[in-house]
Amino acid sequence: MTSAAGIARVVRLDRDGEIAVIRLHRPDRLNAFNRQMRDELLAAFDECDRDDGVRAIVMTGSGRAYCAGADLVDGADTFVAESDDAGAIPPDVGGEVSLRIHRSYKPVVVAVNGPAVGVGVTSTLPADIRIASDTARFGFVFTRRGLVPEACSSWFLPRIVGISTALTWTLSGRMVSASEALDHGLVSEVLPPERLLPRALEIARSLVAGTSPVSVAMTRELLWRMLGAESPEVAHHAESRGIHARARSGDLREGVDAFLAKREPVFADSVADGLPVLFDR
Amino acid sequence: MTSAAGIARVVRLDRDGEIAVIRLHRPDRLNAFNRQMRDELLAAFDECDRDDGVRAIVMTGSGRAYCAGADLVDGADTFVAESDDAGAIPPDVGGEVSLRIHRSYKPVVVAVNGPAVGVGVTSTLPADIRIASDTARFGFVFTRRGLVPEACSSWFLPRIVGISTALTWTLSGRMVSASEALDHGLVSEVLPPERLLPRALEIARSLVAGTSPVSVAMTRELLWRMLGAESPEVAHHAESRGIHARARSGDLREGVDAFLAKREPVFADSVADGLPVLFDR
Amino acid sequence: MTSAAGIARVVRLDRDGEIAVIRLHRPDRLNAFNRQMRDELLAAFDECDRDDGVRAIVMTGSGRAYCAGADLVDGADTFVAESDDAGAIPPDVGGEVSLRIHRSYKPVVVAVNGPAVGVGVTSTLPADIRIASDTARFGFVFTRRGLVPEACSSWFLPRIVGISTALTWTLSGRMVSASEALDHGLVSEVLPPERLLPRALEIARSLVAGTSPVSVAMTRELLWRMLGAESPEVAHHAESRGIHARARSGDLREGVDAFLAKREPVFADSVADGLPVLFDR
Repeated sequence: MTSAAGIARVVRLDRDGEIAVIRLHRPDRLNAFNRQMRDELLAAFDECDRDDGVRAIVMTGSGRAYCAGADLVDGADTFVAESDDAGAIPPDVGGEVSLRIHRSYKPVVVAVNGPAVGVGVTSTLPADIRIASDTARFGFVFTRRGLVPEACSSWFLPRIVGISTALTWTLSGRMVSASEALDHGLVSEVLPPERLLPRALEIARSLVAGTSPVSVAMTRELLWRMLGAESPEVAHHAESRGIHARARSGDLREGVDAFLAKREPVFADSVADGLPVLFDR
Repeated sequence: MTSAAGIARVVRLDRDGEIAVIRLHRPDRLNAFNRQMRDELLAAFDECDRDDGVRAIVMTGSGRAYCAGADLVDGADTFVAESDDAGAIPPDVGGEVSLRIHRSYKPVVVAVNGPAVGVGVTSTLPADIRIASDTARFGFVFTRRGLVPEACSSWFLPRIVGISTALTWTLSGRMVSASEALDHGLVSEVLPPERLLPRALEIARSLVAGTSPVSVAMTRELLWRMLGAESPEVAHHAESRGIHARARSGDLREGVDAFLAKREPVFADSVADGLPVLFDR
Repeated sequence: MTSAAGIARVVRLDRDGEIAVIRLHRPDRLNAFNRQMRDELLAAFDECDRDDGVRAIVMTGSGRAYCAGADLVDGADTFVAESDDAGAIPPDVGGEVSLRIHRSYKPVVVAVNGPAVGVGVTSTLPADIRIASDTARFGFVFTRRGLVPEACSSWFLPRIVGISTALTWTLSGRMVSASEALDHGLVSEVLPPERLLPRALEIARSLVAGTSPVSVAMTRELLWRMLGAESPEVAHHAESRGIHARARSGDLREGVDAFLAKREPVFADSVADGLPVLFDR
């Protein structure tokens, strides 16, 4: 698969029914992350958000690794290159991917099929659910390279595994096994390799079966946004807006009617047409 | 039990020594939530705050359910009705209850005696402790109705069970068993139905035995408020105010004297008279 | 050990290789906390930050207790004394210690060797890792004294053990055993007394072996600061600054070169010379 310019793509986007499968695809480089991968990931998420036929997203890696981290083909200059612009501080490329996943309208399940190191693991943190193969390993290796945590992991990681575990893993920079990741909630399940992708698809389907796509997108936005909010009053305001916006919707009518009639609902409202605004900024 | 206007009450407020028991009481409707229930819950919490004889609150439901969620007697128009006011967005009624519980001066223990669905579960999240009967089930069903999470649950739920579990439950909208709720910290104990209320009363008493009512109310405010605060410096400021306000109190003198004399303290400071202001807003 | 003024010191600062050991040292008073201890703790942390030879800090107590809490030699006037200044609210002395530990450039491991009560436990919460002897007990006893939680514990405790557990412990004021502390994540390990300090030193060494001191200090700042931040966008901004600041550093070059050459890195950048500014305030 190549782009219009004839360059081999490093991200594959496939479909399995209502589920999009986004695959990091540089198997000969252990799916090492580079700017092309960033661009193609952003484009893949844009495409999924525009397509009402996609209800959820599964991310995984081609070959034996999930992602070995930043491609160090330029050695230590890999990170210098980013600071060449005049004046402004260049944005962390891993963070650009994390924020895009954070803003996805569709739920994201990551199937970690092997080692996930550096940006390879930090860019999975904005996903809703992570499961892993028993061959997976996780490395928040930044202190061992003279770097700092990136891809917004300093915000996401403590909220997922707790501050003490997050500090232990990031300060030491040591590798974390699949079973330790499970014990601390970084992943919710560990499976044999051959069962990983089927299970990820099954979980993704469980999030969207019988649910309203607009409600799913709004729920995802509400919970993630409120995770950093100062008070429940902020939630009260946003949720009141959300209820007001949905009160006359076709989906609410269908949802309540189907419930009272004890039948499965069929939701028709579109996500691609845009969502109600819940926050002033 | 009826109101002055002769309408049957849907919330019962009883006393068991120093513990108030607030009971959702529409057993023929599985304690479905409506505006009358909102009004009576707000009034019950006001009454408990004004009464220094009440040291803690236990909430439970009459009959076999805790609360089946919003009363859908008006079908899909249940939620439309709220948006009839001109201009302003009508506040979510579940959120009004949650915020009132959040601001309670007295600790709140919920005994979930059966199914708790929609606002029936989200309105329990501002309580300090939840325990459940093994017949309890929990449903964050909003995506299945075309709605969004409410009652400030987008703020509370991720802080109680973690963001990944909160997303799994709210995105899918599926029912959660008592044992799954226990595994993820939504409830701290699961008991046979006949032991539920006695245990809730026992827990409530353990929070108030030998403790200063004013200190309990201030502690509750500090911990909940700081859960959304930006930094420990904010806590340092509020706690310094709190220590300063208590430094010359009768309760502190009694607490230290009793400790040094190895006797039980008898605290006399009143909560009903008002609490020191810890926050500028 | 005495100060220049001939007063016996209440905090000992020793070295075990790259690890500083800070010891609360009033064994005849169960290491009860007073203003002198506050002053000496602040000075000890300052000294560790200035010394590039110190890579991590272990805190523990002399004798059979970790710290029995505030020294009540003045009875109830212990807390009144603080409010004698005209006008301004006097800062909580426990909070001053907590904020100093919070700002430490070096990771902090606490070895809780016995009872830790009041400020004796709350001042350990800003540490990165806590382990305990099986003789340890923890008491958030403030409601039993007519006081309120202090040392910034209203911010730290819910983030470490969860809001429900934090409320249960602080509202009741009851003592918490080492095994209950382990179950709820207040400590990550419980050991026989004789193995406690060796294990704390081992953990401290695991955080600094093969890691860049500057990266460790920046990682610690990022994770703790982001624990209260509103959104991942805040992290994206700070992390981008951090990567930019490190991109041309000797440590990054060494880290990447060593990794590519499959050898151990030797990091030379100094923490004592100051760290890059990641936040505008």
